[in-house]
Amino acid sequence: MYSKPMRERDVIQFLSARLPIGDDCAVIPLKKTHLLLTTDMLHRQTDFPEGMTPYTMGWRAVAVSLSDIAAMGGKPLGVVIALGAPQFEQKFLEEFLDGALACCTACQTKLLGGDTDRHSELTVVTTALGEAQKPVWRSGACVEELVCVTGDLGRTAAALRLLKERDFDRANELLRFLPRLREGQVLAHLASSMIDISDGLARSLYLLSGASRVGFRIDATAIPFALEVEELARDQDELFEMGLFFGEDFELLFTLPQEKLFEARRACEFTVIGRVVPEHEGITVQLGPERIPLPDRGYEH
Amino acid sequence: MYSKPMRERDVIQFLSARLPIGDDCAVIPLKKTHLLLTTDMLHRQTDFPEGMTPYTMGWRAVAVSLSDIAAMGGKPLGVVIALGAPQFEQKFLEEFLDGALACCTACQTKLLGGDTDRHSELTVVTTALGEAQKPVWRSGACVEELVCVTGDLGRTAAALRLLKERDFDRANELLRFLPRLREGQVLAHLASSMIDISDGLARSLYLLSGASRVGFRIDATAIPFALEVEELARDQDELFEMGLFFGEDFELLFTLPQEKLFEARRACEFTVIGRVVPEHEGITVQLGPERIPLPDRGYEH
Repeated sequence: MYSKPMRERDVIQFLSARLPIGDDCAVIPLKKTHLLLTTDMLHRQTDFPEGMTPYTMGWRAVAVSLSDIAAMGGKPLGVVIALGAPQFEQKFLEEFLDGALACCTACQTKLLGGDTDRHSELTVVTTALGEAQKPVWRSGACVEELVCVTGDLGRTAAALRLLKERDFDRANELLRFLPRLREGQVLAHLASSMIDISDGLARSLYLLSGASRVGFRIDATAIPFALEVEELARDQDELFEMGLFFGEDFELLFTLPQEKLFEARRACEFTVIGRVVPEHEGITVQLGPERIPLPDRGYEH
Repeated sequence: MYSKPMRERDVIQFLSARLPIGDDCAVIPLKKTHLLLTTDMLHRQTDFPEGMTPYTMGWRAVAVSLSDIAAMGGKPLGVVIALGAPQFEQKFLEEFLDGALACCTACQTKLLGGDTDRHSELTVVTTALGEAQKPVWRSGACVEELVCVTGDLGRTAAALRLLKERDFDRANELLRFLPRLREGQVLAHLASSMIDISDGLARSLYLLSGASRVGFRIDATAIPFALEVEELARDQDELFEMGLFFGEDFELLFTLPQEKLFEARRACEFTVIGRVVPEHEGITVQLGPERIPLPDRGYEH
């Protein structure tokens, strides 16, 4: 009916111009607090590869949205799920629901309801509602602050490799990540900016950079790669590919004033990977004696 | 992978046993008020027939979720949309967004963001967040109260007929219903139970009956049919089919203590169509001298 398909980035740019988007959640002030609302669409072809169990699908669908609540420093109030499928089978539905409920329980929140619909392709849209006294935005990073990440990177990339090698148990376990809600909440009063790494570290650094109008100098040797990535990557290029550009890690990337480092270290575990520099310096990675610009690319969903 | 597909009703029953569902929205108490959260999945094959414009699609996607907020007597706080499509075209996206934004504006709320995803079939999942000091549940109807509906019934059934007759302008206009938020809010302190008519009056009466454990005696001559339905229906059977069983009317069905009638009449327009009777009498329709049981069927999405 209409011509000229748009690229995903163009779609987002087009929508950004007309909607108040640009952070991990929509933020709604209410009664001296802030409500956080986020919605994520997952579907069979892109998000549920062969070998992922229904339990893992349910877990991840919930976890992906709760990760957005974590990235704003929020506490979850509840989750709803819209589920579309060509047909519903009780065993699939039971296992999917077990996974979704287990993730909610692990995150001290509740699955409150949803909608079902016949659909040509398995489609899951999860919406999480949260609350934050003091939301952490993407836009608060300042020059001289530290750049930090929770956990380690590349787990989902490693998991997909393991799925291809038919090591299903290990892959599914890696895929069931725990959203960093606890870390997000304790960092809410310390971090100056925060985002979850959903499209790769590189892409998330560019998003934070664009929102805060700063640059970053990243120390490649400091980046924490998951053990599985170090085991599976055949060389350094592949290590970076899996850990920096692949995405779906759902770790928190945040900036921290230097004087808050001690307090933050006592509150939760994380790794300092670089520091904030003026915007005109761009985003660079120190790799041995070389400092190279970080390519702005990542996973497009 | 798994056998034995389930019917939609079985899916809902299965989910109801494990989740706190059973009303138009999930209700979350917070700071002396109640948050309302509802999510709806729409897709090309079932919900966007040929001839429906992208503007109307955007309007309806938002309106369907806001109608659930209305049905609990709530005021909307914001809407997010997840949109999946085989490809995104700027003209489609612009018109869709225009419709979604226009509906938000008409309802004094805001479109706050969302998610986009490549998808084999056009899929829209809208989530609305609302607030109600005193939510109206489906479970509060008492014997002797009045049964009432806002507006008139059968507009969507008439619109789909008009689409088939290629009377696109009139059809699209009928499809862009205004969610009954104002009515829902003024009725919140008067109505004893409320639901929006999404699967037909008959199905909604059964849902209200099940939740409140009451029966209803409906006066067929009092049911307000839309002018278009009266014009398009070829006989009385078809009139009832379009107005009682087709659904997607998104009018409010509510019960009202008799002593509140005067106050309610001053607050908004509605029609009294029957009264609440004990559960064992079931749901019957008075049609001339006859009183017949109302079939429990409606639109399955």
